[in-house]
Amino acid sequence: MKLWQKNTGSKKEVERFTIGRDPEFDVILAPFDVLGSMAHAIMLEKIGLLEADDLIMLKTGLKEIYLEIEKGQFKIEEGVEDVHSQVEFLLTHRYGEAGKKLHSGRSRNDQVLVDLKLYYRAAIREIVEATEELFGLLIQLSEKHKNDLMPGYTHTQLAMPSSFGLWFGSFAEGLTEDLDLLYAAYRLSNKNPLGSAAGYGSSFPLDRTLTTKLLGFDDLHHNVINAQNSRGKTEKTIAFAIAGISGTLNRLAADVCIFMNQHFGFITFPDDLTTGSSIMPHKKNPDVFELIRAKTNQLQGMPNTITLMLTNTTTGYHRDLQLLKEVLFPGIENLLDCIRMSTFMLNEIKVKQNILADPFFRHAFSVEVVNNLVLKGMPFRDAYKKVGMDIEKGEFYPDQNQVAHTHEGSIGNLCSNEITEKMEKAIQKFDFEKVNVALENLMKI
Amino acid sequence: MKLWQKNTGSKKEVERFTIGRDPEFDVILAPFDVLGSMAHAIMLEKIGLLEADDLIMLKTGLKEIYLEIEKGQFKIEEGVEDVHSQVEFLLTHRYGEAGKKLHSGRSRNDQVLVDLKLYYRAAIREIVEATEELFGLLIQLSEKHKNDLMPGYTHTQLAMPSSFGLWFGSFAEGLTEDLDLLYAAYRLSNKNPLGSAAGYGSSFPLDRTLTTKLLGFDDLHHNVINAQNSRGKTEKTIAFAIAGISGTLNRLAADVCIFMNQHFGFITFPDDLTTGSSIMPHKKNPDVFELIRAKTNQLQGMPNTITLMLTNTTTGYHRDLQLLKEVLFPGIENLLDCIRMSTFMLNEIKVKQNILADPFFRHAFSVEVVNNLVLKGMPFRDAYKKVGMDIEKGEFYPDQNQVAHTHEGSIGNLCSNEITEKMEKAIQKFDFEKVNVALENLMKI
Amino acid sequence: MKLWQKNTGSKKEVERFTIGRDPEFDVILAPFDVLGSMAHAIMLEKIGLLEADDLIMLKTGLKEIYLEIEKGQFKIEEGVEDVHSQVEFLLTHRYGEAGKKLHSGRSRNDQVLVDLKLYYRAAIREIVEATEELFGLLIQLSEKHKNDLMPGYTHTQLAMPSSFGLWFGSFAEGLTEDLDLLYAAYRLSNKNPLGSAAGYGSSFPLDRTLTTKLLGFDDLHHNVINAQNSRGKTEKTIAFAIAGISGTLNRLAADVCIFMNQHFGFITFPDDLTTGSSIMPHKKNPDVFELIRAKTNQLQGMPNTITLMLTNTTTGYHRDLQLLKEVLFPGIENLLDCIRMSTFMLNEIKVKQNILADPFFRHAFSVEVVNNLVLKGMPFRDAYKKVGMDIEKGEFYPDQNQVAHTHEGSIGNLCSNEITEKMEKAIQKFDFEKVNVALENLMKI
Amino acid sequence: MKLWQKNTGSKKEVERFTIGRDPEFDVILAPFDVLGSMAHAIMLEKIGLLEADDLIMLKTGLKEIYLEIEKGQFKIEEGVEDVHSQVEFLLTHRYGEAGKKLHSGRSRNDQVLVDLKLYYRAAIREIVEATEELFGLLIQLSEKHKNDLMPGYTHTQLAMPSSFGLWFGSFAEGLTEDLDLLYAAYRLSNKNPLGSAAGYGSSFPLDRTLTTKLLGFDDLHHNVINAQNSRGKTEKTIAFAIAGISGTLNRLAADVCIFMNQHFGFITFPDDLTTGSSIMPHKKNPDVFELIRAKTNQLQGMPNTITLMLTNTTTGYHRDLQLLKEVLFPGIENLLDCIRMSTFMLNEIKVKQNILADPFFRHAFSVEVVNNLVLKGMPFRDAYKKVGMDIEKGEFYPDQNQVAHTHEGSIGNLCSNEITEKMEKAIQKFDFEKVNVALENLMKI
Repeated sequence: MKLWQKNTGSKKEVERFTIGRDPEFDVILAPFDVLGSMAHAIMLEKIGLLEADDLIMLKTGLKEIYLEIEKGQFKIEEGVEDVHSQVEFLLTHRYGEAGKKLHSGRSRNDQVLVDLKLYYRAAIREIVEATEELFGLLIQLSEKHKNDLMPGYTHTQLAMPSSFGLWFGSFAEGLTEDLDLLYAAYRLSNKNPLGSAAGYGSSFPLDRTLTTKLLGFDDLHHNVINAQNSRGKTEKTIAFAIAGISGTLNRLAADVCIFMNQHFGFITFPDDLTTGSSIMPHKKNPDVFELIRAKTNQLQGMPNTITLMLTNTTTGYHRDLQLLKEVLFPGIENLLDCIRMSTFMLNEIKVKQNILADPFFRHAFSVEVVNNLVLKGMPFRDAYKKVGMDIEKGEFYPDQNQVAHTHEGSIGNLCSNEITEKMEKAIQKFDFEKVNVALENLMKI
Repeated sequence: MKLWQKNTGSKKEVERFTIGRDPEFDVILAPFDVLGSMAHAIMLEKIGLLEADDLIMLKTGLKEIYLEIEKGQFKIEEGVEDVHSQVEFLLTHRYGEAGKKLHSGRSRNDQVLVDLKLYYRAAIREIVEATEELFGLLIQLSEKHKNDLMPGYTHTQLAMPSSFGLWFGSFAEGLTEDLDLLYAAYRLSNKNPLGSAAGYGSSFPLDRTLTTKLLGFDDLHHNVINAQNSRGKTEKTIAFAIAGISGTLNRLAADVCIFMNQHFGFITFPDDLTTGSSIMPHKKNPDVFELIRAKTNQLQGMPNTITLMLTNTTTGYHRDLQLLKEVLFPGIENLLDCIRMSTFMLNEIKVKQNILADPFFRHAFSVEVVNNLVLKGMPFRDAYKKVGMDIEKGEFYPDQNQVAHTHEGSIGNLCSNEITEKMEKAIQKFDFEKVNVALENLMKI
Repeated sequence: MKLWQKNTGSKKEVERFTIGRDPEFDVILAPFDVLGSMAHAIMLEKIGLLEADDLIMLKTGLKEIYLEIEKGQFKIEEGVEDVHSQVEFLLTHRYGEAGKKLHSGRSRNDQVLVDLKLYYRAAIREIVEATEELFGLLIQLSEKHKNDLMPGYTHTQLAMPSSFGLWFGSFAEGLTEDLDLLYAAYRLSNKNPLGSAAGYGSSFPLDRTLTTKLLGFDDLHHNVINAQNSRGKTEKTIAFAIAGISGTLNRLAADVCIFMNQHFGFITFPDDLTTGSSIMPHKKNPDVFELIRAKTNQLQGMPNTITLMLTNTTTGYHRDLQLLKEVLFPGIENLLDCIRMSTFMLNEIKVKQNILADPFFRHAFSVEVVNNLVLKGMPFRDAYKKVGMDIEKGEFYPDQNQVAHTHEGSIGNLCSNEITEKMEKAIQKFDFEKVNVALENLMKI
Repeated sequence: MKLWQKNTGSKKEVERFTIGRDPEFDVILAPFDVLGSMAHAIMLEKIGLLEADDLIMLKTGLKEIYLEIEKGQFKIEEGVEDVHSQVEFLLTHRYGEAGKKLHSGRSRNDQVLVDLKLYYRAAIREIVEATEELFGLLIQLSEKHKNDLMPGYTHTQLAMPSSFGLWFGSFAEGLTEDLDLLYAAYRLSNKNPLGSAAGYGSSFPLDRTLTTKLLGFDDLHHNVINAQNSRGKTEKTIAFAIAGISGTLNRLAADVCIFMNQHFGFITFPDDLTTGSSIMPHKKNPDVFELIRAKTNQLQGMPNTITLMLTNTTTGYHRDLQLLKEVLFPGIENLLDCIRMSTFMLNEIKVKQNILADPFFRHAFSVEVVNNLVLKGMPFRDAYKKVGMDIEKGEFYPDQNQVAHTHEGSIGNLCSNEITEKMEKAIQKFDFEKVNVALENLMKI
């Protein structure tokens, strides 16, 4: 029977299509919906739209539901439209009329929006923590391998000496910088939209500053249209931040894949972390890093997909926004997976020793030799000419396979402390503790 | 004659292809190249790689060139490869050997990179200033039209009362939030890469902290590989920030185009700012806003184009990076143009009065009426039922075409001061003055 | 316990990460894997790498599995890696050594690739059929409403008379053109990669022309590296074609959303196909079309995501390619859903009558009036001036609210037959029947 | 003085902004505008809207202008808005009233659209011809190097024997397939929009079939709204096709960059086609291919940028469309440049001989050895086990560094004839000769 034949009950088709994958995302939003309702209820009582008794019942009911969610006992029942309806249904079922009063001064739009903001805030925290863990390992590897030289390339051409210390450290410092974008995303997520109703405010004398404080938000979207416009923009900004970290992981993965190639052979992983072939024992396929490379590319496509879904649309809620969950929610999980798998793998990386001792790499020292001659007093041009001619005549055999770089951030001076300090400062900005305290207080009230 | 026929002089083809559009961008980079060289020279002298006399000559020469650039007298001469060569050529030509010593401890890579960072820093400042101007106008319009109601839409369907005050204000607050992404881009631009050489550091005892201070950078990319990796990443991050502001302007433009449609007819512009047709005098085509809409979409595609050019590439400079200028430089100009043209146009916007007085819009007041009944004591369900039935019977003629919203960010309480304060704080963070002072000092040394 | 703690059994983490969502996609590929194996087995026997007896057993076994898949009885058992292993496992379990011989002269790479091609071929056919159904309805609506005029807009400004006949017909003809891209995707999908092994061919004397014929492929990728390179390229090309149709549906959805706005009010749908609000009965939210708009945007982002996952990678299989399934497979389903829901909804569309009889639209006839005066003999400039002055003086009341256009593709001459013929020709090109016949024969052999 | 100060003459700003870069693109469109006008004039005369005398004058005038364009003598004069106005201005200036009559039954919209279609048609032809030239060289190189083995990689890991014959040939066959997308783009470009006026047709009895024939179009967009909708869609489809070819070139460039790396060292180019460093003579930077890699990525971003500029917009011309020229026109030039530079460079490629003779690569022959044992009668499992154990014991020294592959598309059987035939067929489809004949006739009439 065809989809559009009359007697299929058209409404059902519409329902199926419009609900889409929401049920799976609603489960994620459930605890945040309870928190939002808790703050809203307290505020309603304060402005006189809820009796003190009703508030007591609502608080008890909401806490019960929160615990049920935590224990995995909460589910959206058959026939109930979404997580918000389920919570209201339970409250009404258990505590009568009080449950029905909860929705005063609130629209589904700002309710969903506050749930999303609370979830994003928590998700960003998880990303920061996973990033911090990877960072710690990278710094540790950088220090451990600070004397292990490797070649550095430009134009994919062998250029000059580098080191594993530098290489690991570069991703560590890169991550500290990536947190700036994530912090911008956090600031946008950490603004209270509650009270904006359907995007045009309410004639009730809502106290939006109170809910802002109760939920631990840093600020509110003051303008109610702007609060609604933040839907989509928040997702896009988080996607930018995810793309930022993804870019760093992508380069790491690209490097690993090439460094594991037999011609390079600079790094290896234990056999059980790579895939191979019994017939081709020389193969150690870097599947995990190939997949990280691909997943971080998928993630880097996310901002664009979100932008396509938003652009050229006018002010005001559009149902289009619902589908952003389908894009961003799995994106957050994928990023966490990529960060954690990078940590997991790097934990086991083995680095080849004394790579540059092989005469194959001797030309990488040409700039070193010139500079050393200069430092010993020879004019630059003369030094340059001498080395160039030695090389041309095939007589360039530098007496060194080590380097003595001293400036900030160089092979001999990795500045791991300075870089670690950057990470610490970057994380402090988020002030996750403030949110913790607020939410704990909210549950205690 | 075919391109690849032997006797065309293959080198010429390669030159044409590899130089590309660089000359037009090099002109933009010229003053920044001089500043970078100034700081580098001072540092070289401090670490003993340059004589005091040489430094004096270089400083004099560089200041001369800077002035020539400012006066528009600087140009890259025929046969000179790029801006960097032209500056060195002039110095050497005018001041002899000193010019040749300038390049010690520096590679073309970190030289270009520092030029780019200095340019981006200045460009971001220009964007902030243009944004501030547009913001000021939006707040002004928001206040001016705070009592001018208009309908608010959800699902592109007429929903409830809104106001021009809210509408203008929403973009104002949106811009304050967009500056967070721009600030993240600024922080990445405001880090010193000088001294990273070709991305693997130098055996010279460079003092990178000194050049950081001299150039007014907030920090340095410590790790030299990370400094090189910041090429591309900086451009991508700026593109994200540009896409952020573009998203806000795009929505504004989309709204304007629909509000100028005759069925809405909410706003107009003077005839000389729109295009029309003598035969169709009812037409006032919003060409400027259509083009802003399109340009902001083009700009929103920029992060993706840059990402495509970077992804899956390995650590180390690749010539690919050169082409980013072709993408980002015009993007910066286009954004500035869009911001300024938005200001230019909004300066002349005319808003229709008393739109909601037309009974056509009466249903927009249904929620208002329900809420008012609730506030007067009627239980919500009863109020809701009463209004619903009045509407159904065609007897809904609300006695109001005004609203009395009082909460933060609502029609009656726009919070323009709070929003303005956000903008001020957002701008203060950039601390452009610090850069000013540093660069002025640098020219005075 | 953290993911990367030693005793978690690292292999498990790697397995989880590398398998990803493959199991859900493998179910889709199962029947095609059987078909590919059938053809491979027949060919192996023909070139002497399989005994006649073995072939008989393999054919029996493969047909059994095919039937089990059709009946929904096939599943990938616990511990079995993928669909290919499951099929081999069943064959070996049931028919002994013959099962083990099936893999000679074949690599997992070309096996997966041929499965994908066969699936894509079938999926494209489904898209064509869904498109044909939507097309039929559009032509029918176009004919039904050929006399129902509506305004036409340029610059979102009221411009001149149009008709619902034209409007529906425009999407119909658009779809005929979209099939060209889909045909390009089909041609790429309809090329046999089997025999390319891991991308470098095989030392067995495979008969690739035979498997091409057996599987109903139109051609083979001759060059084995190119066969492997077609992985990714095929997906990208299909994504282009999906984006093409999506663009057409997106515009249709965008039009519907605006035409349902109360200011336009040109079209409606039955209440049970829209969502509303009991308190705001004037609202009929076009949720289905908003979601089609968003989904078609998501789909239009797909080519870019795929491109990001492929670009800058070198020749040869990369594990990255596995993740394309995660992008494209749901994309195919989403497109089918959007096409079918468009058909489903348009089946119930109601069109407003006599829109242009409202004097509000009279200016839309200004060009008509000018042209008519010209056709009656008045010089163009005079006619133009006369009408322009009438409008300016507010005296323009055209005596017509109908038009008499006669040229090809105009309001009065929709050319539905010509457009239908284009659709028929476009579909014939695919020659699906040839595939049908081949696959039926294959199962009969 | 600020941009938006009153006395700057607002109109000028609007003009500057709305005209944008059109003048540089108008020069490209000029000859096509003349062709379109020629056909339109002939048609007007046939339906009685133009006197025979006027037609003679217009034909003479248009031919004159066409010649002036060819000789580079045509330019858009100061104060003239665009190419269309310039052509009309010249005609009127030289031939009086006849010039003014040319615009009857035509709107600027369909005039521009037909110009664009004619230009795109010509541009696609140029792309096909450049592709054919590159293809020819690739086939030639493939044949020349059919016995030059090289290693093949999977997962960037050394896998099994490949050859330069295969490698060059893979791109050749890839290009034949890329032409399918280009052909889809050509079909869309090769449809006549003339007569659709502003997108809603005309009350004049235009003969659109006649102009279709005169301009050598293959078909017309029948439905006039669809004709207008083809603006943007045509550009997007061409961008898809460009992205298709770009994908092939990108992979070629990525391979070249890695194969030129010293660890691989498989290919070289003459010194004057690479860039190097006198101090690092081991470096031969593949700048041209790095830039091709980056440019083809830029080009692969183009479809997305165009999509962003089109999506969510409603039926009817929008000024947004003007900006597509700014995206696509340089894109066409860039693609041509990338194709031609690839040809130019590959013309000089040198390939390393006897790569696989180095024992380093011996494991690449493991599958070969197994298969050969199987072909000599040893059961597959025994052969596999034997080779696996030899390798494990370090005793695997295959007695071969050649392979004997015979199946279609393998190292020993490149099928260059079959692939060449594909290219010939792909090009024949375009039937450029038909356009040639039509346009020549048009000028002769």
